[in-house]
Amino acid sequence: MDATANREWLVGLRRELHRHPEPAWREYYTTARIVEALESMAVDEIQIGPEILGAGARMGVPDEEELTEWLDRARQTGVDDDVLDQLAGGHTGVIATIERGAGPTVALRVDIDGLPQHESKAPTHQPAAEGFRSQNEGYMHACGHDGHTAIGLGVLRLIAESPFQGTLKCIFQPAEERIGGGKAIAESGHLDDVEWLLAVHLGLDHPTGEVVAGIDGFLAVSQLDARFEGEPAHAGGHPEAGHNAVQAMATAVQNLYAIPRHSDGATRVNAGRVGGGTVSNIIPEGAFIEGEVRGETTELMAYTRRKAKQVIRSAAEMHECTATIEQTGEAPGGESDEAVVDLVATAASESDRVDSVIRRDTLGGSEDATYLMQRVQDRGGVAGYVGIGTDHPGGHHTATFDVDEESLLIGVEVLADTILQISRNDQS
Amino acid sequence: MDATANREWLVGLRRELHRHPEPAWREYYTTARIVEALESMAVDEIQIGPEILGAGARMGVPDEEELTEWLDRARQTGVDDDVLDQLAGGHTGVIATIERGAGPTVALRVDIDGLPQHESKAPTHQPAAEGFRSQNEGYMHACGHDGHTAIGLGVLRLIAESPFQGTLKCIFQPAEERIGGGKAIAESGHLDDVEWLLAVHLGLDHPTGEVVAGIDGFLAVSQLDARFEGEPAHAGGHPEAGHNAVQAMATAVQNLYAIPRHSDGATRVNAGRVGGGTVSNIIPEGAFIEGEVRGETTELMAYTRRKAKQVIRSAAEMHECTATIEQTGEAPGGESDEAVVDLVATAASESDRVDSVIRRDTLGGSEDATYLMQRVQDRGGVAGYVGIGTDHPGGHHTATFDVDEESLLIGVEVLADTILQISRNDQS
Amino acid sequence: MDATANREWLVGLRRELHRHPEPAWREYYTTARIVEALESMAVDEIQIGPEILGAGARMGVPDEEELTEWLDRARQTGVDDDVLDQLAGGHTGVIATIERGAGPTVALRVDIDGLPQHESKAPTHQPAAEGFRSQNEGYMHACGHDGHTAIGLGVLRLIAESPFQGTLKCIFQPAEERIGGGKAIAESGHLDDVEWLLAVHLGLDHPTGEVVAGIDGFLAVSQLDARFEGEPAHAGGHPEAGHNAVQAMATAVQNLYAIPRHSDGATRVNAGRVGGGTVSNIIPEGAFIEGEVRGETTELMAYTRRKAKQVIRSAAEMHECTATIEQTGEAPGGESDEAVVDLVATAASESDRVDSVIRRDTLGGSEDATYLMQRVQDRGGVAGYVGIGTDHPGGHHTATFDVDEESLLIGVEVLADTILQISRNDQS
Amino acid sequence: MDATANREWLVGLRRELHRHPEPAWREYYTTARIVEALESMAVDEIQIGPEILGAGARMGVPDEEELTEWLDRARQTGVDDDVLDQLAGGHTGVIATIERGAGPTVALRVDIDGLPQHESKAPTHQPAAEGFRSQNEGYMHACGHDGHTAIGLGVLRLIAESPFQGTLKCIFQPAEERIGGGKAIAESGHLDDVEWLLAVHLGLDHPTGEVVAGIDGFLAVSQLDARFEGEPAHAGGHPEAGHNAVQAMATAVQNLYAIPRHSDGATRVNAGRVGGGTVSNIIPEGAFIEGEVRGETTELMAYTRRKAKQVIRSAAEMHECTATIEQTGEAPGGESDEAVVDLVATAASESDRVDSVIRRDTLGGSEDATYLMQRVQDRGGVAGYVGIGTDHPGGHHTATFDVDEESLLIGVEVLADTILQISRNDQS
Repeated sequence: MDATANREWLVGLRRELHRHPEPAWREYYTTARIVEALESMAVDEIQIGPEILGAGARMGVPDEEELTEWLDRARQTGVDDDVLDQLAGGHTGVIATIERGAGPTVALRVDIDGLPQHESKAPTHQPAAEGFRSQNEGYMHACGHDGHTAIGLGVLRLIAESPFQGTLKCIFQPAEERIGGGKAIAESGHLDDVEWLLAVHLGLDHPTGEVVAGIDGFLAVSQLDARFEGEPAHAGGHPEAGHNAVQAMATAVQNLYAIPRHSDGATRVNAGRVGGGTVSNIIPEGAFIEGEVRGETTELMAYTRRKAKQVIRSAAEMHECTATIEQTGEAPGGESDEAVVDLVATAASESDRVDSVIRRDTLGGSEDATYLMQRVQDRGGVAGYVGIGTDHPGGHHTATFDVDEESLLIGVEVLADTILQISRNDQS
Repeated sequence: MDATANREWLVGLRRELHRHPEPAWREYYTTARIVEALESMAVDEIQIGPEILGAGARMGVPDEEELTEWLDRARQTGVDDDVLDQLAGGHTGVIATIERGAGPTVALRVDIDGLPQHESKAPTHQPAAEGFRSQNEGYMHACGHDGHTAIGLGVLRLIAESPFQGTLKCIFQPAEERIGGGKAIAESGHLDDVEWLLAVHLGLDHPTGEVVAGIDGFLAVSQLDARFEGEPAHAGGHPEAGHNAVQAMATAVQNLYAIPRHSDGATRVNAGRVGGGTVSNIIPEGAFIEGEVRGETTELMAYTRRKAKQVIRSAAEMHECTATIEQTGEAPGGESDEAVVDLVATAASESDRVDSVIRRDTLGGSEDATYLMQRVQDRGGVAGYVGIGTDHPGGHHTATFDVDEESLLIGVEVLADTILQISRNDQS
Repeated sequence: MDATANREWLVGLRRELHRHPEPAWREYYTTARIVEALESMAVDEIQIGPEILGAGARMGVPDEEELTEWLDRARQTGVDDDVLDQLAGGHTGVIATIERGAGPTVALRVDIDGLPQHESKAPTHQPAAEGFRSQNEGYMHACGHDGHTAIGLGVLRLIAESPFQGTLKCIFQPAEERIGGGKAIAESGHLDDVEWLLAVHLGLDHPTGEVVAGIDGFLAVSQLDARFEGEPAHAGGHPEAGHNAVQAMATAVQNLYAIPRHSDGATRVNAGRVGGGTVSNIIPEGAFIEGEVRGETTELMAYTRRKAKQVIRSAAEMHECTATIEQTGEAPGGESDEAVVDLVATAASESDRVDSVIRRDTLGGSEDATYLMQRVQDRGGVAGYVGIGTDHPGGHHTATFDVDEESLLIGVEVLADTILQISRNDQS
Repeated sequence: MDATANREWLVGLRRELHRHPEPAWREYYTTARIVEALESMAVDEIQIGPEILGAGARMGVPDEEELTEWLDRARQTGVDDDVLDQLAGGHTGVIATIERGAGPTVALRVDIDGLPQHESKAPTHQPAAEGFRSQNEGYMHACGHDGHTAIGLGVLRLIAESPFQGTLKCIFQPAEERIGGGKAIAESGHLDDVEWLLAVHLGLDHPTGEVVAGIDGFLAVSQLDARFEGEPAHAGGHPEAGHNAVQAMATAVQNLYAIPRHSDGATRVNAGRVGGGTVSNIIPEGAFIEGEVRGETTELMAYTRRKAKQVIRSAAEMHECTATIEQTGEAPGGESDEAVVDLVATAASESDRVDSVIRRDTLGGSEDATYLMQRVQDRGGVAGYVGIGTDHPGGHHTATFDVDEESLLIGVEVLADTILQISRNDQS
């Protein structure tokens, strides 16, 4: 299919979204804007926030004050207040469904959240030069989810006008960056009848014109938030009276990184953010570690997590502190199915916009699309994670990240062609 | 001498100061208010900020932005703008001098700064109940320096009207809580002709009516601010590319506390505030330790500091990070001279307001009055640190600390009597 | 070819060798016994110790006293004194060569050393039950090298009587367990004309009747011996006077295990043997770590080794100690060439004694045969590492390890057939 | 009194003992030799080993094999087999009693054990030059206990011939170096009627001719022997299968030294001897720490010990190992009573052999004479620890330690005079 006619609309949408980056579970404007775009299309059902998230399955939801601040901010943009009202409490995201009679049930998953990242003001940074830089200072679409959202809408628009037979659900998932939203979508039930699942990501160091038909090697991940509580004391006057939470934390850090490697495959540990204490002359009463563990498989992640929890608890006990450990985000590993890779590779090969098709590549990071993939695969469906190359001047998660908007059309077309082919195959 | 007639004035002054706590090097209102009080007295010379601080000897001065914010805040209180103008850049503090012909040169040192501490709003907390709670939210006179300042002014007022012969310098020192101001006063030259130095502190767990004639056992202290710089990397994708500043910091913390004890006397180490990293999935690029070392003597402190610096540097190197170490505050150890203790003990014993005189007690903490004491003692003078008991409901540096204002009169009288006696002894 | 007629001879040889296990560089009896066996065969050249080891390339050679003790022990067994005289100083091992006119140059490598391991006396342990248990208490052929040596001799015997055309070198390599001999053989020049290299190992958890045609996944390894030197001091009287080598060692251990994982593949670290200090009341003056690093590739091993050295040096410096680091053994990674795997798989498939042929399997450990493989492969030859299954009651390196002697015949026949086929292929 | 006539006998005795150093609980020859010397004197009772040690109160007794080896060694010296038979199982030591009618009960305690220390062979080392170097290679009287034993015998000989009235018990205590014998003597009951207790030590950096009338500042001490048990695993093949006892030990070492200092006084920690693991490629299964904690008071020692045990247990748990902690030696703190110091100072002042009398000095180390002192003091008696200076070329516990034999006479005379004076005072 040809998305050329939609180019201006896609670019406009993406830039609007780029201007309004919202972090995990605070995608109020974004959700309302998606709904607005959908209302002009021939989609059969639009479900939002509370309808699409499994009860109690959201992870890493911020506190009420933080949520309210972003909801207020969204109200000031002029989006539909009725929609916003339904999203309160961080129930963001959309599922849009097209139903066209008998045929396969296909789902496309795109993620919609931004990042806590300052955006470059350099004139060489296109969003700055052309006036669509982030209006939410300190936040940025630095991983291309603005583009993903536009692609999702673009695919719906093409498919709505195509001879597609069957059901297409486009899932606009919140909170991917916190690895917090995937599980809630997976547990919502919306995937339980899905036979084919496609997820998509722009960039990943592939240039415009390159398509990766199947991305694999997702590391299973779990985020841990450990809090140490001890007793303060005057460091000069009564050092023996303290229970030093910083000593506990430091002991834990040293031993977390030293968790034994595993012969079954790669594991990872990181104490990404730590802190503790109040002032130089007080024995520190509190400390924390915001960290993560990963594994090439869910089992390897679980092995590392079990060890990590033991390290944290024993380090606390050693220094007569207490430790509480909260899991704030999680995602399993995942692999793209051959059936999906075949179809995407074929669609990409046949595209004039695509120069190079890589059959499979490895991510080496984590993504909570794997929750959705696992759900579909566990019930007999197939799933694939597609990479759409885009020239990006800065790396992902940096101040100068940007996408080549030409890649939006590539993404829309390759995915729409793949979905259409799934429908055709089913007829034959 | 009898300070009864000044009770209302002393209490009023102390409450005004209590209402306006200002942290180290930001005592703009406080300095101006002291000058205002002095102007109504028979003092011969008033020197402020730039005139009383040794060039380049201030430690722990905050950045310009922070200083300006507090200067602006002070302007809004209505104190003398001309005075404030002279204090810009954090040149706070006052020396007030009474000269009464031939006689000994005596100095009294009081400290004037507040603390970054939230003040209690409980109705049982007298400043809250009687309307003189801190107006600078998050800051508090939680160590009695408001009382010390009032005592300094009270002593000047009594001595000015007494038969005192000689010279009395009252030093209103800034930045004691940061251990940052003592050195600057000591190196200013203003102490070089002082034969007798008295310093005073309220409370210290002694009740109203108890006086400690000589406090000893000050631990020499040095505050260190270490910054570790490494390289960030994606914790899942490229852990080997990082230079982990949090690992360096944790290694340093573990080994700082493990610096060998010393057979010559007590030492202390504390990593009082630490932190590092940004987010769970990035190898931490930066980290810091705000810590301190202490020793029963200056040599013991220096031993521990030398070891601490080695630990920090090697921990950084081990993890291919760099470390910078800044000394942000320092004070030597100190002992009260017997000659001073004798006079204070006598004066206290003869006071009707005093129930109990303790000849000597040990602090076990640090104080930069020791810089002033050392300066005077090194040049052949004598020095003493006097404790004036006061019933204090909460501990020092807590939200419910308060002083019993009756103790202000005790402090004023015991110190004024001591100073007068020094003068008398010199005549005989 | 059929080795049935040699069964008794092979079993007898293996049991004699099993009775006399000698550790790395002390294989005096073993070398002399191999020479004795070779002298009754039609081999064209026998080169021993000093002739087959690259100058200065041996790693992990024990001290003179230790070497002499084992040489004396060997003399008491009655083996040829003339041979022993040539081996003095730990120059052990043999290369036996058969030259049969024009044809390919093939090498077979077997290793000959035993382990410092107590051998079981249990009646269920066949060597104990049948009287060929180790006579060198505390040492044992616990990894099957007695069988490897017998296989090498068996192959020579079969090939000597076969229509083989070309050159066959059988390398009886010393000091594999120390990863100390492979480099010396590789650098001797004896492999520089070798076109085909075969190495062989019994067991590896494969049962009798199973053959692995190509073993891969050798981890590159480097052994490090770190010594920390500090200053002793009385722990009660003058703790500050010590430079604590045990603190340095413990700091290093904690940080060695915490060396960052690498995204390019598996790495390993182990502080396998550590120690330090003398008595509870002396600050420890000395300490050591005998450890190792590994990597899925030589580069990954080198990355880990570089980090390990930095950790050790910085830990020493932190505690004002000195560290010396010696590399006591090393081996690169390695892969079996497809050409070799093909031939071995075919030979094994055609054998009546073989039930199951596995084309490739992964070792997950290290072996210094990789030095020889690398040498041959670097010069355009091909190399393969063959696994001959054997039922072994205890695991490798345990007191109850033993081999099923039936597997000796399998090894001899499969390797001889492979070598003969190489010769035949060259003719055609 | 004058010991000049006994000079040759004292020196001969001391040299015989020097030639036969025996470590803690293995003083078989030494005990028998003391008994032999006593038999020629007018002592009224000789009690040995089993009669003088509190049941079950010995600490740090070696295993049976070790004890038997030393008993056999003693038998070969030709000492009385009947005595040796009674000492079996490490029941060494002697109490010799002189009873001379009514009068005070006085005890003198000397210690008799040697050290595991190689003795110098240098010609400048007098024992080597004059032929009385240790015959037990690797063991040495490197702390002067040979001299102490001779002094004990010399005092008995003088007192036996003096007008002394009362009871004198001379306690020849075993196992001081292990801090293992003092408790057993204290709990034997033999001290329960003692009114005056004297203990003595040569050297301590005081020269010949100097006497310290009262030594104080003994640190209370407790020796801990921690064993960590984990699980071994192949470091390359299955690192995750190990429970690493060396990691547990290293974590413990790091945190032991970091136990908070105490504001009540000095504390000490030392991990004096540590080790673990077997070979570089096996995850270490076992590890140990032989360490100690001390405190200026018994309470401070107990504080540190409690923390140390917590550190060890948590470090084991962190690495899924088990830890067992054995207390292998212990001694309380102690102070010399003024009454004893007075008498010793007087006796020393009146001696022609003494040039300098120091009233009190501080040890800064530990000694289990404090168990005996505490026992006597708790029951109303007084106790003192006397230092007899001696020129010693090497430091205590070093290979070149030696005593100036002139100091033996000083020790004998000063102690005998003190004891006689106690008796005289009681009469008057």
